[in-house]
Amino acid sequence: MAVARLTDSEREELLRRHPEWSLVRDGDAIQRTFRFADFNEAFGFMTRVALLADKADHHPEWSNVYNRVEIVLTTHDAGGLSRRDAEMAKAIDAL
Amino acid sequence: MAVARLTDSEREELLRRHPEWSLVRDGDAIQRTFRFADFNEAFGFMTRVALLADKADHHPEWSNVYNRVEIVLTTHDAGGLSRRDAEMAKAIDAL
Repeated sequence: MAVARLTDSEREELLRRHPEWSLVRDGDAIQRTFRFADFNEAFGFMTRVALLADKADHHPEWSNVYNRVEIVLTTHDAGGLSRRDAEMAKAIDAL
Repeated sequence: MAVARLTDSEREELLRRHPEWSLVRDGDAIQRTFRFADFNEAFGFMTRVALLADKADHHPEWSNVYNRVEIVLTTHDAGGLSRRDAEMAKAIDAL
């Protein structure tokens, strides 16, 4: 399903609402790193994100090393950031 | 817990037993990429690996993009590959 790329002002709004995310890939994606007490806690978080992502059919690019989880959000169909990334960042931040 | 680094011949044995893994990081780690039908299947596999890893207290460095999971195994305490990586590769291959 095609989805519109965010305008510059929408992108600024996204970053203002979610200040712990940073722009990466020339502004076409956002990234946030999460740190937990241990692997158990990190993977528990990943499981919660996986359920959100699969329900929204919008999947992160992510990596995990022990207690650290790095999440990148972008919308390939939009060639950059879309409202789907804004919604996913909001849902992840709410966990 | 300190663990011995594999000797050259033990490392060759590891690669012979687990031919789908390749040496990376100047021979100090092994890597394998897995592809699945979709995210649901990929994350299901990750969950099984997470349970194995946490039980063994030996955690992968890994990333996921939709249906693809890339796993890197190394033993920081050994400064390279150890029997713990060989055991984890074996356990993962057996899933």
